[in-house]
Amino acid sequence: MALPVFHVQQLPIAEANPLRFNSKLAVDWLVRFLRQECVEHRGITEAVIGLSGGVDSAVVAYLAAKAFGADHTHAVMMPYKSSSQQSVDHAQIIVDQLGIKSQTVSISDMVDGYADFCQDEVSPQRLGNICARCRMIVMFDQSSRLNGLPIGTGNKSERLFGYFTWHADDSPPINPLGDLFKTQVWDLARELGVPNEIIDKPASADLVKNQTDESDFGITYLKADKILYYMTAGYPKEKLVEMGFDQGDVNLVWQRVASTHWKRRLPTVAMMGYSTIGEYYLRPVDY
Amino acid sequence: MALPVFHVQQLPIAEANPLRFNSKLAVDWLVRFLRQECVEHRGITEAVIGLSGGVDSAVVAYLAAKAFGADHTHAVMMPYKSSSQQSVDHAQIIVDQLGIKSQTVSISDMVDGYADFCQDEVSPQRLGNICARCRMIVMFDQSSRLNGLPIGTGNKSERLFGYFTWHADDSPPINPLGDLFKTQVWDLARELGVPNEIIDKPASADLVKNQTDESDFGITYLKADKILYYMTAGYPKEKLVEMGFDQGDVNLVWQRVASTHWKRRLPTVAMMGYSTIGEYYLRPVDY
Repeated sequence: MALPVFHVQQLPIAEANPLRFNSKLAVDWLVRFLRQECVEHRGITEAVIGLSGGVDSAVVAYLAAKAFGADHTHAVMMPYKSSSQQSVDHAQIIVDQLGIKSQTVSISDMVDGYADFCQDEVSPQRLGNICARCRMIVMFDQSSRLNGLPIGTGNKSERLFGYFTWHADDSPPINPLGDLFKTQVWDLARELGVPNEIIDKPASADLVKNQTDESDFGITYLKADKILYYMTAGYPKEKLVEMGFDQGDVNLVWQRVASTHWKRRLPTVAMMGYSTIGEYYLRPVDY
Repeated sequence: MALPVFHVQQLPIAEANPLRFNSKLAVDWLVRFLRQECVEHRGITEAVIGLSGGVDSAVVAYLAAKAFGADHTHAVMMPYKSSSQQSVDHAQIIVDQLGIKSQTVSISDMVDGYADFCQDEVSPQRLGNICARCRMIVMFDQSSRLNGLPIGTGNKSERLFGYFTWHADDSPPINPLGDLFKTQVWDLARELGVPNEIIDKPASADLVKNQTDESDFGITYLKADKILYYMTAGYPKEKLVEMGFDQGDVNLVWQRVASTHWKRRLPTVAMMGYSTIGEYYLRPVDY
Protein backbone atom coordinates (compact mmCIF):
# COMPACT_ATOMS: atom_id res chain seq x y z
CA MET A 1 0.00 0.00 0.00
CA ALA A 2 1.44 3.37 -1.06
CA LEU A 3 1.52 5.88 1.76
CA PRO A 4 -0.26 9.23 1.38
CA VAL A 5 2.03 12.19 0.83
CA PHE A 6 1.61 13.73 4.27
CA HIS A 7 3.12 10.66 5.90
CA VAL A 8 6.46 12.19 5.04
CA GLN A 9 5.58 15.35 6.94
CA GLN A 10 6.54 15.56 10.55
CA LEU A 11 4.19 13.43 12.64
CA PRO A 12 2.38 14.89 15.65
CA ILE A 13 3.99 13.80 18.90
CA ALA A 14 2.39 10.76 20.52
CA GLU A 15 0.60 11.60 23.77
CA ALA A 16 -0.47 9.57 26.78
CA ASN A 17 -4.08 10.41 25.94
CA PRO A 18 -4.43 11.83 22.43
CA LEU A 19 -8.22 12.06 22.83
CA ARG A 20 -7.99 14.65 25.59
CA PHE A 21 -9.75 17.90 24.68
CA ASN A 22 -11.28 20.95 26.32
CA SER A 23 -14.92 19.93 26.61
CA LYS A 24 -16.04 23.30 28.00
CA LEU A 25 -14.56 25.08 24.98
CA ALA A 26 -16.02 22.43 22.67
CA VAL A 27 -19.55 23.04 24.01
CA ASP A 28 -19.17 26.77 23.47
CA TRP A 29 -17.86 26.35 19.92
CA LEU A 30 -20.51 23.77 18.94
CA VAL A 31 -23.35 25.95 20.20
CA ARG A 32 -21.97 28.80 18.10
CA PHE A 33 -21.54 26.42 15.13
CA LEU A 34 -25.23 25.44 15.30
CA ARG A 35 -26.40 29.05 15.56
CA GLN A 36 -24.16 30.17 12.74
CA GLU A 37 -24.93 27.37 10.28
CA CYS A 38 -28.68 27.22 10.93
CA VAL A 39 -29.87 30.61 12.12
CA GLU A 40 -27.36 33.03 10.62
CA HIS A 41 -26.52 31.31 7.33
CA ARG A 42 -29.83 29.63 6.58
CA GLY A 43 -32.39 31.59 8.61
CA ILE A 44 -33.62 28.35 10.23
CA THR A 45 -34.70 28.72 13.85
CA GLU A 46 -36.09 25.22 14.55
CA ALA A 47 -33.92 22.17 15.24
CA VAL A 48 -35.28 18.66 14.73
CA ILE A 49 -33.49 15.81 16.52
CA GLY A 50 -34.15 12.10 16.28
CA LEU A 51 -33.86 11.11 19.93
CA SER A 52 -32.96 7.44 20.28
CA GLY A 53 -32.20 7.31 23.99
CA GLY A 54 -28.51 6.93 23.22
CA VAL A 55 -25.72 9.30 24.19
CA ASP A 56 -25.04 10.85 20.76
CA SER A 57 -28.54 12.18 20.17
CA ALA A 58 -28.73 13.15 23.85
CA VAL A 59 -25.64 15.36 23.48
CA VAL A 60 -27.07 16.96 20.33
CA ALA A 61 -30.35 17.67 22.15
CA TYR A 62 -28.45 19.42 24.96
CA LEU A 63 -26.41 21.45 22.46
CA ALA A 64 -29.51 22.36 20.45
CA ALA A 65 -31.43 23.47 23.54
CA LYS A 66 -28.57 25.89 24.25
CA ALA A 67 -28.23 27.03 20.64
CA PHE A 68 -31.89 27.33 19.62
CA GLY A 69 -33.70 27.44 22.98
CA ALA A 70 -35.90 24.69 24.42
CA ASP A 71 -39.01 25.98 22.61
CA HIS A 72 -37.26 25.70 19.26
CA THR A 73 -35.79 22.25 19.82
CA HIS A 74 -38.02 19.42 18.62
CA ALA A 75 -37.24 15.87 19.65
CA VAL A 76 -38.77 13.09 17.55
CA MET A 77 -38.86 9.62 19.06
CA MET A 78 -39.24 7.00 16.33
CA PRO A 79 -39.56 3.55 17.88
CA TYR A 80 -40.08 0.41 15.83
CA LYS A 81 -42.16 -2.34 17.41
CA SER A 82 -38.99 -4.18 18.49
CA SER A 83 -37.28 -1.12 20.03
CA SER A 84 -36.38 -1.54 23.70
CA GLN A 85 -38.47 0.18 26.38
CA GLN A 86 -35.26 1.42 27.99
CA SER A 87 -34.45 3.46 24.87
CA VAL A 88 -37.86 5.12 24.94
CA ASP A 89 -37.54 5.83 28.69
CA HIS A 90 -34.10 7.36 28.31
CA ALA A 91 -35.30 9.62 25.51
CA GLN A 92 -38.15 10.79 27.74
CA ILE A 93 -35.73 11.64 30.58
CA ILE A 94 -33.85 13.98 28.23
CA VAL A 95 -37.05 15.65 27.01
CA ASP A 96 -38.18 16.22 30.60
CA GLN A 97 -34.82 17.48 31.80
CA LEU A 98 -34.44 20.00 28.95
CA GLY A 99 -38.10 20.95 28.60
CA ILE A 100 -37.83 20.66 24.82
CA LYS A 101 -40.76 19.87 22.54
CA SER A 102 -41.30 16.24 21.63
CA GLN A 103 -43.45 13.83 19.69
CA THR A 104 -43.43 10.09 19.12
CA VAL A 105 -43.82 8.76 15.59
CA SER A 106 -43.96 4.98 15.38
CA ILE A 107 -42.28 3.71 12.21
CA SER A 108 -43.80 0.22 12.53
CA ASP A 109 -46.59 0.66 9.96
CA MET A 110 -44.21 2.28 7.51
CA VAL A 111 -41.51 -0.36 7.82
CA ASP A 112 -43.93 -3.27 7.79
CA GLY A 113 -45.85 -1.72 4.89
CA TYR A 114 -42.78 -2.65 2.88
CA ALA A 115 -41.31 -5.60 4.80
CA ASP A 116 -44.59 -7.52 4.74
CA PHE A 117 -44.72 -6.94 0.99
CA CYS A 118 -41.42 -8.75 0.43
CA GLN A 119 -41.93 -12.39 -0.54
CA ASP A 120 -38.67 -13.46 1.08
CA GLU A 121 -37.54 -13.28 4.68
CA VAL A 122 -36.05 -9.82 5.37
CA SER A 123 -32.80 -10.36 7.31
CA PRO A 124 -32.16 -8.41 10.54
CA GLN A 125 -29.48 -6.39 8.72
CA ARG A 126 -31.85 -5.40 5.92
CA LEU A 127 -34.56 -4.58 8.46
CA GLY A 128 -32.12 -2.38 10.39
CA ASN A 129 -31.31 -0.40 7.25
CA ILE A 130 -35.00 -0.03 6.39
CA CYS A 131 -35.74 1.26 9.91
CA ALA A 132 -32.84 3.73 9.82
CA ARG A 133 -33.94 5.10 6.44
CA CYS A 134 -37.59 5.36 7.48
CA ARG A 135 -36.42 7.46 10.43
CA MET A 136 -34.61 9.73 7.96
CA ILE A 137 -37.88 10.20 6.06
CA VAL A 138 -39.74 11.13 9.26
CA MET A 139 -36.97 13.54 10.34
CA PHE A 140 -36.95 15.39 7.02
CA ASP A 141 -40.73 15.42 6.77
CA GLN A 142 -41.23 16.74 10.30
CA SER A 143 -38.53 19.34 9.60
CA SER A 144 -40.45 20.41 6.53
CA ARG A 145 -43.64 20.72 8.62
CA LEU A 146 -41.83 22.79 11.27
CA ASN A 147 -39.71 24.86 8.84
CA GLY A 148 -36.73 23.38 10.64
CA LEU A 149 -33.63 21.36 9.86
CA PRO A 150 -32.68 17.84 11.01
CA ILE A 151 -29.51 17.94 13.09
CA GLY A 152 -27.05 15.06 12.66
CA THR A 153 -25.78 12.89 15.50
CA GLY A 154 -23.15 10.67 13.85
CA ASN A 155 -19.76 10.72 15.62
CA LYS A 156 -16.33 10.41 14.01
CA SER A 157 -15.67 6.85 15.23
CA GLU A 158 -18.76 5.39 13.62
CA ARG A 159 -18.31 7.53 10.53
CA LEU A 160 -14.73 6.29 10.07
CA PHE A 161 -15.85 2.72 10.69
CA GLY A 162 -18.70 3.10 8.20
CA TYR A 163 -20.97 1.95 11.03
CA PHE A 164 -24.08 3.72 9.80
CA THR A 165 -26.72 3.34 7.13
CA TRP A 166 -26.09 5.33 3.96
CA HIS A 167 -28.76 8.04 3.45
CA ALA A 168 -30.00 7.49 7.00
CA ASP A 169 -27.90 8.27 10.11
CA ASP A 170 -25.55 10.38 8.00
CA SER A 171 -28.25 12.33 6.16
CA PRO A 172 -28.91 15.53 8.17
CA PRO A 173 -27.39 18.64 6.54
CA ILE A 174 -25.75 19.90 9.75
CA ASN A 175 -23.79 17.70 12.15
CA PRO A 176 -22.09 19.04 15.30
CA LEU A 177 -20.58 15.67 16.37
CA GLY A 178 -19.08 14.39 13.12
CA ASP A 179 -15.50 15.33 14.01
CA LEU A 180 -15.57 14.00 17.60
CA PHE A 181 -14.59 10.45 18.50
CA LYS A 182 -17.10 8.45 20.56
CA THR A 183 -15.02 8.68 23.73
CA GLN A 184 -14.96 12.47 23.26
CA VAL A 185 -18.75 12.49 22.92
CA TRP A 186 -18.87 10.76 26.33
CA ASP A 187 -16.73 13.59 27.77
CA LEU A 188 -18.97 16.16 26.18
CA ALA A 189 -22.02 14.40 27.65
CA ARG A 190 -20.53 14.67 31.14
CA GLU A 191 -19.75 18.34 30.61
CA LEU A 192 -23.35 18.97 29.49
CA GLY A 193 -24.94 17.07 32.39
CA VAL A 194 -26.43 14.16 30.45
CA PRO A 195 -27.61 11.59 33.08
CA ASN A 196 -25.00 8.92 33.86
CA GLU A 197 -27.32 6.03 33.05
CA ILE A 198 -27.39 7.21 29.44
CA ILE A 199 -23.62 7.78 29.25
CA ASP A 200 -22.62 4.56 30.98
CA LYS A 201 -24.81 2.03 29.15
CA PRO A 202 -23.13 0.10 26.31
CA ALA A 203 -23.56 1.87 22.98
CA SER A 204 -26.02 0.01 20.75
CA ALA A 205 -27.96 0.62 17.55
CA ASP A 206 -30.91 -1.07 19.30
CA LEU A 207 -31.76 -3.12 16.22
CA VAL A 208 -31.04 -6.61 17.57
CA LYS A 209 -31.47 -7.61 21.24
CA ASN A 210 -28.24 -7.49 23.31
CA GLN A 211 -26.26 -6.26 20.29
CA THR A 212 -23.65 -3.61 21.15
CA ASP A 213 -21.40 -1.51 18.94
CA GLU A 214 -18.25 -2.87 20.58
CA SER A 215 -19.28 -6.51 20.14
CA ASP A 216 -20.01 -5.76 16.48
CA PHE A 217 -16.58 -4.18 16.04
CA GLY A 218 -14.54 -6.66 18.06
CA ILE A 219 -12.71 -3.77 19.75
CA THR A 220 -13.57 -1.21 22.45
CA TYR A 221 -14.21 2.41 21.54
CA LEU A 222 -11.31 3.51 23.75
CA LYS A 223 -8.78 1.37 21.89
CA ALA A 224 -10.31 2.07 18.48
CA ASP A 225 -10.44 5.84 19.03
CA LYS A 226 -6.75 6.03 19.91
CA ILE A 227 -5.79 4.05 16.83
CA LEU A 228 -8.13 6.11 14.65
CA TYR A 229 -6.62 9.29 16.06
CA TYR A 230 -3.10 8.33 15.04
CA MET A 231 -4.25 6.82 11.76
CA THR A 232 -5.98 10.03 10.64
CA ALA A 233 -2.96 11.99 11.85
CA GLY A 234 -0.88 10.14 9.25
CA TYR A 235 0.90 7.48 11.37
CA PRO A 236 1.65 4.30 9.41
CA LYS A 237 0.57 0.93 10.84
CA GLU A 238 4.13 -0.08 11.73
CA LYS A 239 4.60 3.03 13.86
CA LEU A 240 1.47 2.24 15.88
CA VAL A 241 2.63 -1.30 16.59
CA GLU A 242 6.01 0.11 17.64
CA MET A 243 4.15 2.41 20.04
CA GLY A 244 2.59 -0.63 21.71
CA PHE A 245 -0.77 -1.03 19.98
CA ASP A 246 -1.84 -4.61 19.29
CA GLN A 247 -1.19 -5.65 15.68
CA GLY A 248 -4.60 -7.33 15.42
CA ASP A 249 -6.38 -4.21 16.69
CA VAL A 250 -4.46 -2.02 14.26
CA ASN A 251 -5.31 -4.31 11.32
CA LEU A 252 -8.96 -4.40 12.33
CA VAL A 253 -9.24 -0.61 12.44
CA TRP A 254 -7.38 -0.16 9.14
CA GLN A 255 -9.60 -2.72 7.43
CA ARG A 256 -12.81 -1.08 8.69
CA VAL A 257 -11.79 2.35 7.45
CA ALA A 258 -10.33 1.10 4.16
CA SER A 259 -13.45 -0.85 3.21
CA THR A 260 -15.91 1.99 3.86
CA HIS A 261 -14.42 5.01 2.07
CA TRP A 262 -17.35 4.97 -0.38
CA LYS A 263 -19.78 5.75 2.46
CA ARG A 264 -18.02 9.04 3.13
CA ARG A 265 -18.24 10.27 -0.46
CA LEU A 266 -20.88 11.57 -2.82
CA PRO A 267 -22.04 9.13 -5.51
CA THR A 268 -19.69 8.46 -8.43
CA VAL A 269 -20.79 10.21 -11.60
CA ALA A 270 -19.53 9.45 -15.11
CA MET A 271 -17.60 12.57 -16.19
CA MET A 272 -18.62 13.71 -19.67
CA GLY A 273 -17.37 17.30 -19.79
CA TYR A 274 -15.03 19.70 -18.07
CA SER A 275 -17.55 21.18 -15.63
CA THR A 276 -18.79 18.08 -13.79
CA ILE A 277 -20.69 18.82 -10.55
CA GLY A 278 -18.41 18.32 -7.57
CA GLU A 279 -15.32 18.18 -9.74
CA TYR A 280 -15.19 21.59 -11.28
CA TYR A 281 -18.03 24.05 -11.36
CA LEU A 282 -18.49 27.47 -9.87
CA ARG A 283 -18.34 27.93 -6.13
CA PRO A 284 -19.36 25.09 -3.83
CA VAL A 285 -21.83 27.15 -1.79
CA ASP A 286 -23.58 30.41 -2.28
CA TYR A 287 -24.70 31.72 1.10
CA MET B 1 -21.24 38.83 -6.55
CA ALA B 2 -17.52 38.14 -6.81
CA LEU B 3 -16.63 36.12 -9.91
CA PRO B 4 -14.86 32.78 -9.55
CA VAL B 5 -11.20 32.87 -10.49
CA PHE B 6 -11.54 30.94 -13.73
CA HIS B 7 -13.73 33.66 -15.18
CA VAL B 8 -10.53 35.46 -16.03
CA GLN B 9 -9.28 32.48 -18.00
CA GLN B 10 -10.04 32.36 -21.69
CA LEU B 11 -13.67 31.42 -22.22
CA PRO B 12 -14.64 28.55 -24.51
CA ILE B 13 -15.90 29.78 -27.86
CA ALA B 14 -19.70 30.08 -28.09
CA GLU B 15 -21.23 27.59 -30.49
CA ALA B 16 -24.50 27.42 -32.41
CA ASN B 17 -25.36 24.30 -30.41
CA PRO B 18 -23.11 23.86 -27.39
CA LEU B 19 -25.03 20.73 -26.34
CA ARG B 20 -24.02 18.79 -29.45
CA PHE B 21 -22.10 15.61 -28.56
CA ASN B 22 -21.18 12.25 -30.06
CA SER B 23 -23.95 10.04 -28.72
CA LYS B 24 -22.50 6.84 -30.20
CA LEU B 25 -19.20 7.44 -28.41
CA ALA B 26 -21.09 8.39 -25.22
CA VAL B 27 -22.97 5.07 -25.21
CA ASP B 28 -19.71 3.18 -25.59
CA TRP B 29 -17.99 5.10 -22.79
CA LEU B 30 -20.95 4.87 -20.40
CA VAL B 31 -21.24 1.11 -20.89
CA ARG B 32 -17.55 0.82 -20.06
CA PHE B 33 -18.00 3.19 -17.09
CA LEU B 34 -20.73 0.93 -15.63
CA ARG B 35 -18.68 -2.23 -16.14
CA GLN B 36 -15.58 -0.67 -14.66
CA GLU B 37 -17.17 0.93 -11.58
CA CYS B 38 -19.47 -1.97 -10.71
CA VAL B 39 -17.95 -5.19 -11.97
CA GLU B 40 -14.21 -4.47 -12.05
CA HIS B 41 -13.84 -2.14 -9.05
CA ARG B 42 -16.55 -3.49 -6.79
CA GLY B 43 -17.16 -7.03 -8.02
CA ILE B 44 -20.88 -6.31 -8.40
CA THR B 45 -22.55 -8.06 -11.33
CA GLU B 46 -26.21 -7.12 -10.75
CA ALA B 47 -27.68 -3.71 -11.62
CA VAL B 48 -30.88 -2.49 -9.96
CA ILE B 49 -32.81 0.29 -11.69
CA GLY B 50 -35.90 2.11 -10.51
CA LEU B 51 -37.91 2.24 -13.73
CA SER B 52 -40.39 5.13 -13.67
CA GLY B 53 -41.52 5.07 -17.29
CA GLY B 54 -39.59 8.29 -17.93
CA VAL B 55 -36.72 8.77 -20.34
CA ASP B 56 -33.86 9.00 -17.80
CA SER B 57 -34.43 5.61 -16.18
CA ALA B 58 -35.20 4.15 -19.63
CA VAL B 59 -31.78 5.24 -20.90
CA VAL B 60 -30.09 3.77 -17.83
CA ALA B 61 -31.94 0.47 -18.34
CA TYR B 62 -30.71 0.30 -21.96
CA LEU B 63 -27.14 1.09 -20.87
CA ALA B 64 -27.28 -1.45 -18.04
CA ALA B 65 -28.61 -4.19 -20.32
CA LYS B 66 -25.54 -3.63 -22.53
CA ALA B 67 -23.10 -3.39 -19.61
CA PHE B 68 -24.39 -6.16 -17.34
CA GLY B 69 -26.52 -8.26 -19.73
CA ALA B 70 -30.31 -8.54 -19.64
CA ASP B 71 -30.25 -11.36 -17.07
CA HIS B 72 -28.27 -9.21 -14.66
CA THR B 73 -30.35 -6.06 -15.04
CA HIS B 74 -33.21 -5.80 -12.55
CA ALA B 75 -35.92 -3.22 -13.09
CA VAL B 76 -38.02 -2.27 -10.08
CA MET B 77 -41.32 -0.51 -10.72
CA MET B 78 -42.45 1.33 -7.59
CA PRO B 79 -45.85 2.90 -8.21
CA TYR B 80 -47.73 4.85 -5.55
CA LYS B 81 -51.53 4.64 -5.66
CA SER B 82 -51.71 7.98 -7.48
CA SER B 83 -49.06 7.13 -10.12
CA SER B 84 -50.32 7.38 -13.69
CA GLN B 85 -51.14 4.19 -15.64
CA GLN B 86 -49.15 5.58 -18.57
CA SER B 87 -45.96 5.54 -16.46
CA VAL B 88 -46.49 1.89 -15.55
CA ASP B 89 -47.24 0.98 -19.17
CA HIS B 90 -44.12 2.74 -20.46
CA ALA B 91 -41.93 0.98 -17.91
CA GLN B 92 -43.38 -2.34 -19.07
CA ILE B 93 -42.58 -1.55 -22.72
CA ILE B 94 -38.91 -1.11 -21.77
CA VAL B 95 -38.82 -4.34 -19.78
CA ASP B 96 -40.36 -6.25 -22.69
CA GLN B 97 -38.11 -4.68 -25.32
CA LEU B 98 -34.90 -5.40 -23.38
CA GLY B 99 -35.92 -8.73 -21.84
CA ILE B 100 -34.56 -7.61 -18.47
CA LYS B 101 -35.79 -8.92 -15.14
CA SER B 102 -38.48 -6.94 -13.38
CA GLN B 103 -40.69 -6.73 -10.36
CA THR B 104 -43.34 -4.32 -9.12
CA VAL B 105 -43.21 -3.11 -5.52
CA SER B 106 -46.08 -0.86 -4.55
CA ILE B 107 -44.97 1.83 -2.08
CA SER B 108 -48.54 2.76 -1.11
CA ASP B 109 -48.66 0.85 2.19
CA MET B 110 -45.24 2.14 3.20
CA VAL B 111 -45.98 5.79 2.37
CA ASP B 112 -49.45 5.72 3.89
CA GLY B 113 -48.15 3.87 6.96
CA TYR B 114 -46.49 7.17 7.77
CA ALA B 115 -48.72 9.75 6.04
CA ASP B 116 -51.87 8.43 7.73
CA PHE B 117 -50.06 8.69 11.06
CA CYS B 118 -49.52 12.44 10.66
CA GLN B 119 -52.19 14.48 12.40
CA ASP B 120 -51.95 17.31 9.90
CA GLU B 121 -52.60 17.37 6.17
CA VAL B 122 -49.46 16.24 4.33
CA SER B 123 -48.92 18.69 1.44
CA PRO B 124 -48.34 17.35 -2.12
CA GLN B 125 -44.71 18.51 -1.90
CA ARG B 126 -44.11 16.61 1.35
CA LEU B 127 -45.86 13.56 -0.06
CA GLY B 128 -43.66 13.71 -3.17
CA ASN B 129 -40.52 13.72 -1.02
CA ILE B 130 -41.81 10.83 1.10
CA CYS B 131 -42.56 8.79 -2.04
CA ALA B 132 -39.14 9.50 -3.55
CA ARG B 133 -37.37 8.47 -0.34
CA CYS B 134 -39.45 5.32 0.07
CA ARG B 135 -38.37 4.35 -3.45
CA MET B 136 -34.76 4.83 -2.35
CA ILE B 137 -35.36 2.39 0.52
CA VAL B 138 -36.83 -0.21 -1.83
CA MET B 139 -33.98 0.21 -4.34
CA PHE B 140 -31.28 -0.27 -1.70
CA ASP B 141 -33.10 -3.14 -0.03
CA GLN B 142 -33.72 -5.00 -3.29
CA SER B 143 -30.06 -4.40 -4.20
CA SER B 144 -29.08 -5.95 -0.91
CA ARG B 145 -31.28 -8.98 -1.62
CA LEU B 146 -29.79 -9.37 -5.10
CA ASN B 147 -26.19 -8.55 -4.13
CA GLY B 148 -26.44 -5.70 -6.61
CA LEU B 149 -26.10 -1.94 -6.71
CA PRO B 150 -28.73 0.71 -7.42
CA ILE B 151 -27.81 2.69 -10.54
CA GLY B 152 -28.58 6.42 -10.54
CA THR B 153 -30.67 8.18 -13.17
CA GLY B 154 -30.37 11.88 -12.26
CA ASN B 155 -29.27 14.10 -15.15
CA LYS B 156 -27.11 17.24 -14.97
CA SER B 157 -29.94 19.68 -15.63
CA GLU B 158 -32.05 18.52 -12.69
CA ARG B 159 -28.98 18.17 -10.50
CA LEU B 160 -27.91 21.76 -11.21
CA PHE B 161 -31.47 22.99 -10.66
CA GLY B 162 -31.69 21.05 -7.39
CA TYR B 163 -34.82 19.46 -8.86
CA PHE B 164 -34.61 16.23 -6.91
CA THR B 165 -35.23 14.95 -3.39
CA TRP B 166 -32.16 14.80 -1.17
CA HIS B 167 -31.28 11.21 -0.22
CA ALA B 168 -33.71 9.92 -2.82
CA ASP B 169 -33.24 10.43 -6.59
CA ASP B 170 -29.60 11.34 -6.01
CA SER B 171 -28.81 8.44 -3.67
CA PRO B 172 -27.45 5.59 -5.86
CA PRO B 173 -23.67 5.15 -5.58
CA ILE B 174 -23.10 5.01 -9.35
CA ASN B 175 -24.69 7.39 -11.83
CA PRO B 176 -23.98 7.27 -15.59
CA LEU B 177 -26.20 10.29 -16.49
CA GLY B 178 -25.15 12.86 -13.88
CA ASP B 179 -22.91 14.84 -16.23
CA LEU B 180 -25.34 14.92 -19.18
CA PHE B 181 -27.90 17.67 -19.67
CA LYS B 182 -31.52 16.59 -20.20
CA THR B 183 -31.47 17.43 -23.89
CA GLN B 184 -28.37 15.23 -24.24
CA VAL B 185 -30.20 12.38 -22.48
CA TRP B 186 -32.87 12.71 -25.17
CA ASP B 187 -30.17 12.34 -27.84
CA LEU B 188 -28.76 9.33 -26.04
CA ALA B 189 -32.25 7.80 -25.85
CA ARG B 190 -32.62 8.10 -29.65
CA GLU B 191 -29.19 6.55 -30.17
CA LEU B 192 -30.14 3.63 -27.90
CA GLY B 193 -33.52 3.02 -29.56
CA VAL B 194 -35.78 4.03 -26.67
CA PRO B 195 -39.35 4.19 -28.08
CA ASN B 196 -40.35 7.69 -29.28
CA GLU B 197 -43.46 7.85 -27.11
CA ILE B 198 -41.19 7.78 -24.04
CA ILE B 199 -38.74 10.35 -25.42
CA ASP B 200 -41.36 12.75 -26.75
CA LYS B 201 -43.71 12.98 -23.77
CA PRO B 202 -43.24 16.00 -21.48
CA ALA B 203 -40.81 15.22 -18.63
CA SER B 204 -42.66 14.91 -15.31
CA ALA B 205 -41.98 13.67 -11.80
CA ASP B 206 -45.49 12.12 -11.92
CA LEU B 207 -46.30 13.32 -8.42
CA VAL B 208 -49.12 15.74 -9.26
CA LYS B 209 -51.51 15.34 -12.23
CA ASN B 210 -50.51 17.35 -15.33
CA GLN B 211 -47.40 18.69 -13.63
CA THR B 212 -44.37 18.88 -15.91
CA ASP B 213 -40.74 19.74 -15.16
CA GLU B 214 -40.77 22.66 -17.60
CA SER B 215 -43.93 24.20 -16.10
CA ASP B 216 -42.33 23.90 -12.64
CA PHE B 217 -39.17 25.61 -13.88
CA GLY B 218 -40.79 28.32 -16.01
CA ILE B 219 -38.27 27.61 -18.81
CA THR B 220 -37.80 24.86 -21.40
CA TYR B 221 -35.00 22.33 -21.03
CA LEU B 222 -33.52 23.44 -24.36
CA LYS B 223 -33.14 27.05 -23.22
CA ALA B 224 -32.08 26.10 -19.68
CA ASP B 225 -29.47 23.59 -20.85
CA LYS B 226 -27.76 26.13 -23.13
CA ILE B 227 -27.60 28.69 -20.32
CA LEU B 228 -26.39 26.04 -17.84
CA TYR B 229 -23.72 24.98 -20.31
CA TYR B 230 -22.24 28.47 -20.57
CA MET B 231 -22.73 29.17 -16.86
CA THR B 232 -20.75 26.10 -15.81
CA ALA B 233 -18.14 26.96 -18.44
CA GLY B 234 -17.51 30.19 -16.54
CA TYR B 235 -19.45 32.75 -18.62
CA PRO B 236 -20.76 35.65 -16.53
CA LYS B 237 -24.43 36.63 -16.77
CA GLU B 238 -23.72 39.80 -18.74
CA LYS B 239 -21.91 37.85 -21.44
CA LEU B 240 -24.90 35.54 -21.90
CA VAL B 241 -27.27 38.47 -22.31
CA GLU B 242 -24.86 39.96 -24.82
CA MET B 243 -24.97 36.66 -26.72
CA GLY B 244 -28.75 37.00 -27.04
CA PHE B 245 -30.11 35.01 -24.11
CA ASP B 246 -33.14 36.54 -22.39
CA GLN B 247 -32.22 38.39 -19.17
CA GLY B 248 -35.16 36.84 -17.29
CA ASP B 249 -34.17 33.32 -18.37
CA VAL B 250 -30.57 33.92 -17.34
CA ASN B 251 -31.63 35.25 -13.92
CA LEU B 252 -33.98 32.30 -13.41
CA VAL B 253 -31.26 29.74 -14.15
CA TRP B 254 -28.69 31.53 -11.97
CA GLN B 255 -31.15 31.75 -9.08
CA ARG B 256 -32.04 28.04 -9.30
CA VAL B 257 -28.40 26.95 -9.21
CA ALA B 258 -27.35 29.47 -6.56
CA SER B 259 -30.09 28.45 -4.14
CA THR B 260 -29.43 24.72 -4.33
CA HIS B 261 -25.67 24.34 -3.87
CA TRP B 262 -26.27 22.57 -0.53
CA LYS B 263 -28.01 19.70 -2.31
CA ARG B 264 -24.84 18.88 -4.23
CA ARG B 265 -22.62 18.67 -1.15
CA LEU B 266 -22.12 16.31 1.75
CA PRO B 267 -23.53 17.44 5.11
CA THR B 268 -21.72 20.22 6.96
CA VAL B 269 -19.73 18.91 9.91
CA ALA B 270 -18.31 21.02 12.74
CA MET B 271 -14.52 20.79 12.37
CA MET B 272 -12.85 19.98 15.67
CA GLY B 273 -9.40 18.76 14.65
CA TYR B 274 -7.03 18.75 11.72
CA SER B 275 -8.13 15.45 10.18
CA THR B 276 -11.84 16.04 9.60
CA ILE B 277 -13.48 13.52 7.27
CA GLY B 278 -13.84 14.97 3.77
CA GLU B 279 -11.53 17.87 4.59
CA TYR B 280 -8.26 16.17 5.28
CA TYR B 281 -7.83 12.51 5.97
CA LEU B 282 -6.07 9.73 4.14
CA ARG B 283 -7.05 8.87 0.61
CA PRO B 284 -10.65 9.39 -0.53
CA VAL B 285 -11.13 5.83 -1.82
CA ASP B 286 -9.38 2.59 -1.36
CA TYR B 287 -10.20 0.34 -4.33
